[in-house]
Amino acid sequence: MAKAKIFRLAQIVERFGGEIIGNPQTPISQVATLENASSQHVGFLSNKKYRKQLAETRAGAVILHAADGGLTRLPRILCNDPYLYFAKVSALFNPPIVGAAGVHKTAVIERGTKVPASASIGAGVYIGRAVKLGKGVVIGAGCCLGDKVEIGAGSRLHARVTVYPGCRLGQRTLVHSGAVIGADGFGIALDEDGWRKIPQTGGVLIGDDVEIGANTCIDRGALDDTVIENGVKLDNLIQIGHNVRVGAHTAIAGCTGIAGSTRIGKHCMIGGAANIVGHLDIADRVIIHAAAVVTKSIRKAGSYGGHPAEDSRNWSRHVASLRQLDLLRERVRDLEQRLSARENKN
Amino acid sequence: MAKAKIFRLAQIVERFGGEIIGNPQTPISQVATLENASSQHVGFLSNKKYRKQLAETRAGAVILHAADGGLTRLPRILCNDPYLYFAKVSALFNPPIVGAAGVHKTAVIERGTKVPASASIGAGVYIGRAVKLGKGVVIGAGCCLGDKVEIGAGSRLHARVTVYPGCRLGQRTLVHSGAVIGADGFGIALDEDGWRKIPQTGGVLIGDDVEIGANTCIDRGALDDTVIENGVKLDNLIQIGHNVRVGAHTAIAGCTGIAGSTRIGKHCMIGGAANIVGHLDIADRVIIHAAAVVTKSIRKAGSYGGHPAEDSRNWSRHVASLRQLDLLRERVRDLEQRLSARENKN
Amino acid sequence: MAKAKIFRLAQIVERFGGEIIGNPQTPISQVATLENASSQHVGFLSNKKYRKQLAETRAGAVILHAADGGLTRLPRILCNDPYLYFAKVSALFNPPIVGAAGVHKTAVIERGTKVPASASIGAGVYIGRAVKLGKGVVIGAGCCLGDKVEIGAGSRLHARVTVYPGCRLGQRTLVHSGAVIGADGFGIALDEDGWRKIPQTGGVLIGDDVEIGANTCIDRGALDDTVIENGVKLDNLIQIGHNVRVGAHTAIAGCTGIAGSTRIGKHCMIGGAANIVGHLDIADRVIIHAAAVVTKSIRKAGSYGGHPAEDSRNWSRHVASLRQLDLLRERVRDLEQRLSARENKN
Repeated sequence: MAKAKIFRLAQIVERFGGEIIGNPQTPISQVATLENASSQHVGFLSNKKYRKQLAETRAGAVILHAADGGLTRLPRILCNDPYLYFAKVSALFNPPIVGAAGVHKTAVIERGTKVPASASIGAGVYIGRAVKLGKGVVIGAGCCLGDKVEIGAGSRLHARVTVYPGCRLGQRTLVHSGAVIGADGFGIALDEDGWRKIPQTGGVLIGDDVEIGANTCIDRGALDDTVIENGVKLDNLIQIGHNVRVGAHTAIAGCTGIAGSTRIGKHCMIGGAANIVGHLDIADRVIIHAAAVVTKSIRKAGSYGGHPAEDSRNWSRHVASLRQLDLLRERVRDLEQRLSARENKN
Repeated sequence: MAKAKIFRLAQIVERFGGEIIGNPQTPISQVATLENASSQHVGFLSNKKYRKQLAETRAGAVILHAADGGLTRLPRILCNDPYLYFAKVSALFNPPIVGAAGVHKTAVIERGTKVPASASIGAGVYIGRAVKLGKGVVIGAGCCLGDKVEIGAGSRLHARVTVYPGCRLGQRTLVHSGAVIGADGFGIALDEDGWRKIPQTGGVLIGDDVEIGANTCIDRGALDDTVIENGVKLDNLIQIGHNVRVGAHTAIAGCTGIAGSTRIGKHCMIGGAANIVGHLDIADRVIIHAAAVVTKSIRKAGSYGGHPAEDSRNWSRHVASLRQLDLLRERVRDLEQRLSARENKN
Repeated sequence: MAKAKIFRLAQIVERFGGEIIGNPQTPISQVATLENASSQHVGFLSNKKYRKQLAETRAGAVILHAADGGLTRLPRILCNDPYLYFAKVSALFNPPIVGAAGVHKTAVIERGTKVPASASIGAGVYIGRAVKLGKGVVIGAGCCLGDKVEIGAGSRLHARVTVYPGCRLGQRTLVHSGAVIGADGFGIALDEDGWRKIPQTGGVLIGDDVEIGANTCIDRGALDDTVIENGVKLDNLIQIGHNVRVGAHTAIAGCTGIAGSTRIGKHCMIGGAANIVGHLDIADRVIIHAAAVVTKSIRKAGSYGGHPAEDSRNWSRHVASLRQLDLLRERVRDLEQRLSARENKN
């Protein structure tokens, strides 16, 4: 996808640090997996599982942890965190591809909305009234932005994103196709003849440098806003209920659901398909495992999993216990027989 | 979002009942949380957790349970169900915002479809042949309605909803962005050389006053219809399989999946991320907890949870037992030692 | 939905095999459920649960297993697999309904893309540059196809599907509304000041005869491709992470999530709402039950379920054990009392 721009290992190390072993003039035109790399590619090793591939790779160079420098004779860059280093090198070779600035002739833009000259508005886009668009925003084909929406400078919405009226996105946000930002929260009250809808009059406030995955939904608040702080990364098919707050730099994997009014701390990592019920508080730096069902607030940093969720080590122990119940039952049966034998003897 | 229309407490009580304590002429222009209310706002208390906020609120008036009338000196409305009362007051101050009637010039409407003068059809909408639209329907930007779809009077589809051919929605239904109504059910039969698709020739029949959340999917039936009865409320990212029937006034929270041919009773409440397998019967007034995995029919009203789901009290007891297994194992070890000691003694 | 084309039982058996009992000239115009069939319909029985309906059906004929031939006096076709037979008969009466070939005047097609005369491109479609479309492809209203996408002959995208740049779909694929193919995988690396995005430079490669459900997401690979092999069937609201490989003829039910780099074998069946963590290997012909949480590789064909997943029979036994823990605890208490009694006696 990228043009064959070439960097020498020396140029890469000049930008990102690390130590070169081997020819610093080795030319690199792209990143690749060890398995599929060819001579102008740089590969990386961050997971021991792939050591065998290092022995067989045809990469021109590799990025390794300082401790692994002896595992190959290839030209190599040694560093403290090969995965992060690779991320930086990949970004160097693969800048985002963005269409030319301008408004597609099929886009519809209502009165009171100004489009900066640097913005790119795709085919079939609908933008309501009084929308504020920052410099360089990219709005993909088929997106719908309601009245009074705000999108910060440098943000990009891929094709077919919906943003309901009044929702605000920060700078350099990236939103994938099918995401829905600002639909009504699930607010209903039981009346004699059925459910009565509670108008959802809050909005959605999304910080800077947030990424939102495909078909993910972030509901607007019932009264106050739903808030996604700076640097949060959301994967696909996530449900964020009304009035949830997700703390800065928290990452959440796909299919996770967070029910209304729950507050997630900063720097948390939440595994895929987790479920967090409503009105809870989750502390900073909490790790929640895939498919965990969180039913109580978590006050302390740490690692949690299971259904219902508890400290991960406890959950692992309880699962192990459950799987040995047969054995325990046999021991009880044995005790019963031995004790009965003694009772009968006397 | 609403204009500053003002109601006096006396006018509110005249509409919705309840008892005023304090000045009945107190002017109210909007609802708000106790935490963020200002002097022309009315707040409410329905959850003990927020009592402290009642002491500190700057609201002009509050809605309270009759028993809580002594907790504040603010002008207040006393009633039996503050949450429901608040729902009604909020609806008074926040009527839905709807664009002007008319068909946007970029909408495409096929032959044989008539649009009532009172309807609003947004930009980029596609409507197939022989579609029936009731009075006052609102079809948001980018929606796609297949041939022979029917949408009852007063219904609203937000931006980017898809309705497959032949599906029918009742009156006053509300559908959020990204919802897909009437895609093929997952009907496949195993043949020697792989799966063979079973044509999904049934439709989807949705009653009156139904709400459908963002990116929720309701599949068409294999032969007969999939049915969502009156007053059902569905949150976001829900999957309703083919030939499911959801009984009237049942509410289902986000990320829940209901597999094919299962029948859910009336007035049920189903928590988020629940999973209900296919071909089951769930009775009326059943409560299913978040993340429950329902693998058997439920014949009796009550509360169910867990994986696999069982009576909630049993599930809680079993979880508690599991967490005390260490203790039980120690008791067994102790018994073994004591018994061995006696056996060796004799 | 289908025109009243009529086939005689004899004509059906000529095409699909099986044995007729009763009048071979019985006219059939459509398939139906036993419950709702009328005299020109053919019903089928494949699930014992519906035997009672066979006694009461008004169908003109029925499809039965050879062993069930004596259960009715209606004209009938006997075969080895009534469900599969019904699938074939239903396909005969219900061929897909496809609009006329041609490009809708509101569709936008960029330079370098040629549309075959046999293709049908719907209203409001956006197709990027250098896209390759096979013969007879159908692209529904509102779809967005990025640059260099490839769609094989005979494939159909329903309304509002998104395909990111460079993704390739095989022949006769069927994609439902809201599906997103090729959004960025969830690739982030932790840096001192937050998460750093890893460019997702791989693509998505989808084989022939694949079906993809509504609002399902298949992420593009981080470096190499995400691969969906021939004949795979995916239900709605499924998440397929980057670099996953799904083996040929595997079927996956709705709401399931498969995390990055996991490889699923061929001919697997995966129940709804299952969660499979990343970097695992799942063997061929594995059956995974609904809501299973798979945390380890599965090397052997078989049936797996639970949280965390294990052999299904073990999981069932462990659930039963858990539910009898009260009883075990009572037995231990009884032992303690009996042993104490003896100890005190002596």
